Amino acid sequence: MPNSALLTDLYQLTMLQGYYEQNMEELAVFEFFVRKLPKNRSYLVASGLAQVLTYLEQLHFSSDEIDWLASSGQFKPIVLARLKSLKFTGDVHAMPEGTVFFPNEPILRITAPLPEAQLVESRVINLLHFQTLIASKAARSVLIAPDKLLVDFGMRRAHGSEAALLAARASYLAGFTGTATVVAGMCFGIPVFGTMAHSFIQAYNSESQAFADFAKANPDNVVLLIDTYDTEAGAQKVVDLAIALHVQGIKIKGVRLDSGDLADHARKVRNILDRGGLDDTTVFASGNIDEYKLEELVAQQAPIDGFGIGTHLDTSADAPYLDCAYKLQEYAGIARRKRSEGKATWPGRKQVYRNYDDGVMSGDTVTVDNAPCAGQPLLQWVMQCGKTVAGQPTLIEAREYTRRQLNSLPMSLRQLSNTPEYPVIISAELQELAKTVDERNTG
Amino acid sequence: MPNSALLTDLYQLTMLQGYYEQNMEELAVFEFFVRKLPKNRSYLVASGLAQVLTYLEQLHFSSDEIDWLASSGQFKPIVLARLKSLKFTGDVHAMPEGTVFFPNEPILRITAPLPEAQLVESRVINLLHFQTLIASKAARSVLIAPDKLLVDFGMRRAHGSEAALLAARASYLAGFTGTATVVAGMCFGIPVFGTMAHSFIQAYNSESQAFADFAKANPDNVVLLIDTYDTEAGAQKVVDLAIALHVQGIKIKGVRLDSGDLADHARKVRNILDRGGLDDTTVFASGNIDEYKLEELVAQQAPIDGFGIGTHLDTSADAPYLDCAYKLQEYAGIARRKRSEGKATWPGRKQVYRNYDDGVMSGDTVTVDNAPCAGQPLLQWVMQCGKTVAGQPTLIEAREYTRRQLNSLPMSLRQLSNTPEYPVIISAELQELAKTVDERNTG
Repeated sequence: MPNSALLTDLYQLTMLQGYYEQNMEELAVFEFFVRKLPKNRSYLVASGLAQVLTYLEQLHFSSDEIDWLASSGQFKPIVLARLKSLKFTGDVHAMPEGTVFFPNEPILRITAPLPEAQLVESRVINLLHFQTLIASKAARSVLIAPDKLLVDFGMRRAHGSEAALLAARASYLAGFTGTATVVAGMCFGIPVFGTMAHSFIQAYNSESQAFADFAKANPDNVVLLIDTYDTEAGAQKVVDLAIALHVQGIKIKGVRLDSGDLADHARKVRNILDRGGLDDTTVFASGNIDEYKLEELVAQQAPIDGFGIGTHLDTSADAPYLDCAYKLQEYAGIARRKRSEGKATWPGRKQVYRNYDDGVMSGDTVTVDNAPCAGQPLLQWVMQCGKTVAGQPTLIEAREYTRRQLNSLPMSLRQLSNTPEYPVIISAELQELAKTVDERNTG
Repeated sequence: MPNSALLTDLYQLTMLQGYYEQNMEELAVFEFFVRKLPKNRSYLVASGLAQVLTYLEQLHFSSDEIDWLASSGQFKPIVLARLKSLKFTGDVHAMPEGTVFFPNEPILRITAPLPEAQLVESRVINLLHFQTLIASKAARSVLIAPDKLLVDFGMRRAHGSEAALLAARASYLAGFTGTATVVAGMCFGIPVFGTMAHSFIQAYNSESQAFADFAKANPDNVVLLIDTYDTEAGAQKVVDLAIALHVQGIKIKGVRLDSGDLADHARKVRNILDRGGLDDTTVFASGNIDEYKLEELVAQQAPIDGFGIGTHLDTSADAPYLDCAYKLQEYAGIARRKRSEGKATWPGRKQVYRNYDDGVMSGDTVTVDNAPCAGQPLLQWVMQCGKTVAGQPTLIEAREYTRRQLNSLPMSLRQLSNTPEYPVIISAELQELAKTVDERNTG
């Protein structure tokens, strides 16, 4: 299902019926961009390109899908025949995953025969939107707490299985240390973290016995959850257990707090552990954490070494969607644009140039592709005639690139709120082109 | 991937390592419930059970998955052998899909050997949480605009492919007319709607020509998008076209508005259509619509016949997650509960009873399973020894049941905000049981 050609909106198919009938198969150029930032975001982090390229390479209708479309009675035999042999044969230009970007900057451009470029709209948006949403959310935690171990804990409340898997990927790209979602380890090689739930403790009549048995069963990964009944009493049991385990050569790596005032509990627990000689046992916290809570805990210098960040990350709870679009900018060699109220777009094929001041991003220009412009061009050619261009970065390489991108953000944009607007200039050439398009196209 | 056994949190597997080593395989009882309602919800609609039952029936580790777990070096051979042959052999009790429910009411109970009931936690929550979230959001639009055609338009900004598919299902369950997401038609038989995007218009040099060609290509489904350049001018072109199409026996079914002041445009467009003799051509609106906007448009008596509701629905934007949990309530015949600060749960196997007053829900009681109680019991036995009990409702039947459930909601709870709290009583028996558990279990 994830890459079914039917993972699209019906109108793509009814439009294709029109395009095929009228032989409208000239090259079309569509671009994906964000119209404006959500309230609590000062920048976005491009993510999801790898999944888009795989989707485009694999795009085809199975015979079951064609049969189902035929049975709907909405499609003419000639159209079904065309769909049956449809492949994506176009080109893709895109910002590398991990690139920081801003409104009105295309992060992906598809150039392909109109029916192909049209059909893929729904899934291309679906893939780019979600991972960009999550990478952008995750980056905020990474910049607020750069020295902490950050782990994605969000699978259970992510919106379905693919959201869980891709949230693990996008947050790892943005600098998280890893995830609790096992399948993300197998699919993407992301480090997987995990210890125990309250149910493990509850299934025993004695919390101490539960700790001891867990340690014995998982000697290399002893992180004990200590808040099921009383957090500080739990910490003391950990100290008592440590001596017995020491004899067996087992070390208690950490404890986890999951409720109450985390800063207060962490301080008390840290004291209990230190007094008990467990000064290299780490304190890990989870439970309703997001970047705002994280900022608070860091400011309070809470002695917490790592955080599990779940629901707020995987749903991007304070901004659960982006105002993004995938729009036709050129067809048959002629630049186009939509002028609907409040939704007008910049026409034509575009490129984004970035300037730096002493290694810090100082301003971008969006201009017509191939127009002369100062700065570093951000969109690269990543797919040619339906084949991914060799040398795409691995996830680890993309993660390192993301780290450098985030490090070049102006300090003012790294705050969680009340940030200034980053300067993005629409070039004179592009404004000129828009004027020409409007003058020509009065409908 | 959607039903991979690795679609779980790592801690489930490290806990299983403990359970197997200690032969802790007695029957465990876990329940799924919501702790409290999000700010803008006065009730929830249970959804996702069908997918949970399929997941449990199909649960197994593939040999690739076992190999991958082995390669991680974290699991003992004896544990890997157990996982290799693991199946779900337990029982499930649940509220039927579409049941309206409230905080502290379990909507699903799993009774199974501890390792099985534990392992499935992450995916069971993931499935129930998301569809319940969306069905609950969708029901609000259905109750606000019961006579309108409501179509899920959210695929592109849903969080991944599964979210798109299951949001279509959950909103249809709650009473939406259908979806634009084609794959949901094939997978679930949900009616699929769709017409044209702005790109179709933009690809032409003439809007009128685009309308004419689309109508010819899709003669049974002529809904024309009229806001690409100027909405009222677009409506006039539709009127002009209608005469030419009439000769060919093609009828213009509707027009779609997607920007600007929808009520104002709809009135002007309705007038243009009526004056042009197109009084049975419907007006359909989309663009940033949710139940709040819908309430406004209905109050203004905007002449709009149907709505495409996308992003706000599929991401449940005003409440993108539920504070839900799946908790161990009994193990080896002994009731249990967690007492973590602010997260204490009611112990034991429970049943929920509902009372009605003249066909209107008047109050629920949560009590110990099998305790005598007035009212209609809501949890039913739906899986026995790993097999789904015969006679589960089809999606159409569940949708009809949901309709009746929503119709029995007190009027006061149907408002979009400032609703009173629905009375849910925790029975004396259950409070007594909690006391007993606390006295026994001091850790």
